[in-house]
Amino acid sequence: MPERRKICVVVNSRANYGRIKSAMRAIQQHPRLELQLLVGASALLHRFGSVIDIIRNDGFEPTAVVHSIVEGETPTTMAKSTGLGVLELASQFENIRPDVVLTVADRFETIATAIAASYMNIPVAHTQGGEVTGSIDESVRHAVTKLSHIHFPATERAHEFLLRMGEEEDTVHLTGCPAMDLVADADLTLPPDLFKRYAGVGADINPDRPYLVVLQHPVTTEYGQGFTQISETLNAISKIGMQVAWLWPNVDAGSDDVSKGLRVFREHHNPDYLHFYRNFSPEDYLRLIKHCACLVGNSSSGLREGAFMGIPCVNIGTRQQGRERGANVIDVPYEAGKIEAAIGRQLAHGAYEPSTLFGNGTAGNQIADILAVADFRIQKKLSYVG
Amino acid sequence: MPERRKICVVVNSRANYGRIKSAMRAIQQHPRLELQLLVGASALLHRFGSVIDIIRNDGFEPTAVVHSIVEGETPTTMAKSTGLGVLELASQFENIRPDVVLTVADRFETIATAIAASYMNIPVAHTQGGEVTGSIDESVRHAVTKLSHIHFPATERAHEFLLRMGEEEDTVHLTGCPAMDLVADADLTLPPDLFKRYAGVGADINPDRPYLVVLQHPVTTEYGQGFTQISETLNAISKIGMQVAWLWPNVDAGSDDVSKGLRVFREHHNPDYLHFYRNFSPEDYLRLIKHCACLVGNSSSGLREGAFMGIPCVNIGTRQQGRERGANVIDVPYEAGKIEAAIGRQLAHGAYEPSTLFGNGTAGNQIADILAVADFRIQKKLSYVG
Amino acid sequence: MPERRKICVVVNSRANYGRIKSAMRAIQQHPRLELQLLVGASALLHRFGSVIDIIRNDGFEPTAVVHSIVEGETPTTMAKSTGLGVLELASQFENIRPDVVLTVADRFETIATAIAASYMNIPVAHTQGGEVTGSIDESVRHAVTKLSHIHFPATERAHEFLLRMGEEEDTVHLTGCPAMDLVADADLTLPPDLFKRYAGVGADINPDRPYLVVLQHPVTTEYGQGFTQISETLNAISKIGMQVAWLWPNVDAGSDDVSKGLRVFREHHNPDYLHFYRNFSPEDYLRLIKHCACLVGNSSSGLREGAFMGIPCVNIGTRQQGRERGANVIDVPYEAGKIEAAIGRQLAHGAYEPSTLFGNGTAGNQIADILAVADFRIQKKLSYVG
Amino acid sequence: MPERRKICVVVNSRANYGRIKSAMRAIQQHPRLELQLLVGASALLHRFGSVIDIIRNDGFEPTAVVHSIVEGETPTTMAKSTGLGVLELASQFENIRPDVVLTVADRFETIATAIAASYMNIPVAHTQGGEVTGSIDESVRHAVTKLSHIHFPATERAHEFLLRMGEEEDTVHLTGCPAMDLVADADLTLPPDLFKRYAGVGADINPDRPYLVVLQHPVTTEYGQGFTQISETLNAISKIGMQVAWLWPNVDAGSDDVSKGLRVFREHHNPDYLHFYRNFSPEDYLRLIKHCACLVGNSSSGLREGAFMGIPCVNIGTRQQGRERGANVIDVPYEAGKIEAAIGRQLAHGAYEPSTLFGNGTAGNQIADILAVADFRIQKKLSYVG
Repeated sequence: MPERRKICVVVNSRANYGRIKSAMRAIQQHPRLELQLLVGASALLHRFGSVIDIIRNDGFEPTAVVHSIVEGETPTTMAKSTGLGVLELASQFENIRPDVVLTVADRFETIATAIAASYMNIPVAHTQGGEVTGSIDESVRHAVTKLSHIHFPATERAHEFLLRMGEEEDTVHLTGCPAMDLVADADLTLPPDLFKRYAGVGADINPDRPYLVVLQHPVTTEYGQGFTQISETLNAISKIGMQVAWLWPNVDAGSDDVSKGLRVFREHHNPDYLHFYRNFSPEDYLRLIKHCACLVGNSSSGLREGAFMGIPCVNIGTRQQGRERGANVIDVPYEAGKIEAAIGRQLAHGAYEPSTLFGNGTAGNQIADILAVADFRIQKKLSYVG
Repeated sequence: MPERRKICVVVNSRANYGRIKSAMRAIQQHPRLELQLLVGASALLHRFGSVIDIIRNDGFEPTAVVHSIVEGETPTTMAKSTGLGVLELASQFENIRPDVVLTVADRFETIATAIAASYMNIPVAHTQGGEVTGSIDESVRHAVTKLSHIHFPATERAHEFLLRMGEEEDTVHLTGCPAMDLVADADLTLPPDLFKRYAGVGADINPDRPYLVVLQHPVTTEYGQGFTQISETLNAISKIGMQVAWLWPNVDAGSDDVSKGLRVFREHHNPDYLHFYRNFSPEDYLRLIKHCACLVGNSSSGLREGAFMGIPCVNIGTRQQGRERGANVIDVPYEAGKIEAAIGRQLAHGAYEPSTLFGNGTAGNQIADILAVADFRIQKKLSYVG
Repeated sequence: MPERRKICVVVNSRANYGRIKSAMRAIQQHPRLELQLLVGASALLHRFGSVIDIIRNDGFEPTAVVHSIVEGETPTTMAKSTGLGVLELASQFENIRPDVVLTVADRFETIATAIAASYMNIPVAHTQGGEVTGSIDESVRHAVTKLSHIHFPATERAHEFLLRMGEEEDTVHLTGCPAMDLVADADLTLPPDLFKRYAGVGADINPDRPYLVVLQHPVTTEYGQGFTQISETLNAISKIGMQVAWLWPNVDAGSDDVSKGLRVFREHHNPDYLHFYRNFSPEDYLRLIKHCACLVGNSSSGLREGAFMGIPCVNIGTRQQGRERGANVIDVPYEAGKIEAAIGRQLAHGAYEPSTLFGNGTAGNQIADILAVADFRIQKKLSYVG
Repeated sequence: MPERRKICVVVNSRANYGRIKSAMRAIQQHPRLELQLLVGASALLHRFGSVIDIIRNDGFEPTAVVHSIVEGETPTTMAKSTGLGVLELASQFENIRPDVVLTVADRFETIATAIAASYMNIPVAHTQGGEVTGSIDESVRHAVTKLSHIHFPATERAHEFLLRMGEEEDTVHLTGCPAMDLVADADLTLPPDLFKRYAGVGADINPDRPYLVVLQHPVTTEYGQGFTQISETLNAISKIGMQVAWLWPNVDAGSDDVSKGLRVFREHHNPDYLHFYRNFSPEDYLRLIKHCACLVGNSSSGLREGAFMGIPCVNIGTRQQGRERGANVIDVPYEAGKIEAAIGRQLAHGAYEPSTLFGNGTAGNQIADILAVADFRIQKKLSYVG
């Protein structure tokens, strides 16, 4: 390998960017590393808030962009987007020749990245391996683990699970999740104009009054039930009577059903307490949830960043099932009554003690330091055979 | 699910067809199952002996064909072929709507199949999970396991490894490998005209005299070394002085280097003892190796079918490293002298005792019976979390 | 060719369906023809009103569906959608083996269809060749002509232009446009519940009072100007003070800008006279425009069906430049004042005399009859060389 | 546009490189232009002589490479290769942002280039427009014309045909074909070691004795007849009894049939007068044909470069039908007897007077000069409407 290793980070969505940004910065600033950045998939789309603009504002210039979303938000198109991602990323990797590819979590773009790189004999580094959830993400996360050459799990249990799955011990590094670094480093004061910085549609939100944040994604393995599921949440929210910052769901199969639920509700009820946002910068998102009265939905941020900040969180349905969580989370099924009740309990409780379950805020630097010196064995071997 | 479950088998290469044929037959004949057959990738290519013609001759009519090989046989094109396979298979699955997709082993077409089906919430059934080898196949096999909903491992150790990797116990069925069924059922007498049935190029082979069979594929994780590696084998073979039936390598990255080695050797030495074949039918291939003096190279058939038939086998290099094997295999590195010596030892030894390490010849029927009644849980769950 | 020729129609959008439906029906009912139907691209998307549902309601069952839109609505993604369409359609054609492929007009799906079929030696039949417009459609339409083996132009001038471009005389058949057949055959009475049949968002429309219809697509060759362009139209409309049925734009590059203009206007002005629709069935769309006070925008339907029905039409900008038109059209640039004035003039004028410029309502049957007996020469030849 | 216009040349095959090389050089050296170079398709493949290595040796460094051949060489895979080419080229264009894309002739990669660029509002420059031939190239060439913004035809007739097809006069520039520049500029002395510079297989060729050159490609519109067609040529050649330098056919549909014919002949007849080559550098190819006794087959080089150099040429079948030609060409059908007789006549005749029908050797510089100053109108318009 050359003196300065080229570390290629592939960023494909709002969520992924916040989970890898501190590692990108650490790589960019590391004397023995060079950052290559590919931005693709929903991170390029206006509909998801043009994450690429935020990335550029943060001082990262993409080496190349990769359009790979086949439109439709169905199981078929999600599969096809994966295939298109592999096709495109292979071309990019051939032209920019990274020494290592770093990929995040468990999305279809993640496995597309891992497949392209591993077939091309480029070592794959992976964050968030060993965690447990619902949705197709659960299968994909572990499949990516089996394609990856170095692992940066976020929790002790995840670290142990990776070893049990047969990953070789010297390739697994418990660094915590880079998302915690952002929390640790950012000034999380609520900017008075936060709700004005992003357009969106709906009622104005008064930052001086309590507000909820809702973020509920489709569950791919429950495809077809998204409309019903989101309706339960909407019914619960409408009874709470508190202003709400609501983020549109991600690009997964079923997103259309969720969006339809939101649009229909908005059209029929014309609620004066709801504002819909496409996106926030990673730090503004942290500020947003840091100061909310309760974070509602099925985003992993309630469990991950939520634990670190002690945010009251109501987690709905199966998307996060099996994932580790702190005391800040109350789990409920897709039932309006139970969602409402759980929000009520969280409002009564208020903030929780912070927890470092998912990291202590140093992951990005650790990852960069390890990538700078690691020996990679392209030929993987199941640890069971010794 | 409907009364007759639609089981879609995806066949992509010569090797895969022989490893799944008995299961295809059992599915085709099962009263509660319907066979859907997709044929794609190298199974469509003249260069690899037009496997699709053999499939049709066997009485299986493809539901659809899928061209997905991006030409080049480099790491990049192998990645891109995977992506193209996902794109295409997703379309096919959408249009034929299988209840289960059955995929074989560890090739790029295998993971393409598993990704397309699993994102589409179609249960994935997988054979050969839990085995250990070299090459990128090692990573891909385990990744496919993590995407699969039901597993049909071939050996006891593979069964155990699948459980250790976190697959849930009721989804893992030790059936043996369907390839053994073919051996058990076929008339393996050597047809006098076997060597005339297939065209190929080179010297005539006399079936009444001893012959070697050589089959050496590229090792993707050692890309760039194929020419040197095959030259060692060619040097060894040229010293043995026995007639040889040599099969061209598969479509993996590096195939060009191996083929170049073969062509250069043929052009320079004009050997009067070598015949090159593109392909045999699965049964003819079994007859071919059943009666050979020694099977040389790095094909898994030496270890799998070879164990069942007790064929003397010299296994070269890393491609099969870590795989279980019977007494019939001698392992050697890429060194002409050691290859030659090992062949000499095998010629002196002759046939071995058969072993049922990889199955007892009933796998196809077992697989069909299980697929007919299995309950599939689309939402996978790592068994460690209970 | 077989007794019953298989004619494959590829339908990719709302607009294309209405322009080919009568030919589909005629093919379906023709004793010597068999209809194969591929539905793809935006015709599959919820965002464009799920045209496929309307097609099924009309009694046409798709032979297969083809997802091929790469999301983004930029020039890049429009190009990529074309490429993906070619990839997918080639697979479909290989599996369903049509005798002729019939493709409509000038969209990226049209050229994708023509390329796939012509490289596969399948005769390509084409409607709307020889017309002249703006946008990339202008280039694409003529390119499709050069790939097509039989032409069904809509107008006499188009017929002449095809000959001048070098198409051989016996391959060019002046049939008129099948869209006119729908107008001729449908009961165009305004259903009292028309505006309730389709969901959409915005104010209720009273069918007993006059209304405008607006349909303004992006112009790909003016990419980046869509927001400004649509704002002019919105300003004009807001001054007219008449209720409006507004259709969302198509999937072309720049659609996002147009949609953004519409959403921003709606959010800021909360207009009580605007209803936004995704789609209508072809016949309902005809009823809608038949009874409108004025059809505003840049849709070709103002010029084509508009001529046949004598609908007052204000055509904005360059998208239709050079296209033939009847007396019913007033052309204006992207300027609010001029748009408003032209609408005013049309409201004062009222309905026009019908014109058969684009056909007399018999195109579908003519096309089917010709396809049933035509001799196709796969090898094209520029007529200039004799 | 910026001070130095970025001109992106897309090179996809052996033939295309020689036809554009002088323009590439002129662009590279032009003070107001910058050369961007994409190399893809068969130009990357070892099987076609790794044209990319020759390009690099000539001092052109590819900006990026693009793998886009879907393997199979059938009509289906040719279509799919076109689609994959569009997908890939769109990504590359987005990332390197050319001001103009320059594309050559009439191949599937040519139309892929033209589609990607024209949908992206990048002006397309095209060489060899307006010529007439057989094969699918005939349709594709004219389709590319309709997508192109500036034309550099090679002959006066082609120039006239472009105008008749409706291209606007100020966009059509009669420059001649850049291939002639190479002939005019190169030292065409036959290097004594020419036949040793390239590997290939078969008999040694003695440069001091007369030799034939054969180059016969598949005709896509006669798919399935390649084996028979090439057999006629082989029979004719075998009767001439002169040594032969034979080039493998290109990647078009049917190539497999032609190659099979060559391999079968070689295997059965073991001819001691035939050497098969994959490729020559453009200049070495000119030297090769300059000194041959007769150029046989259906390559356009017999008509184009052949005219300029006065090479006796026997043109077989329909691939070049309708193309302009000089006195140096005798046309024959696919019949061994007639091929043999025509070769005999050419051997008796010897060299012809040179002709500047396809250019006078200044095309490359003219093209560069025009591209440096041209005004491009992205919105095309059929000239017929004035």
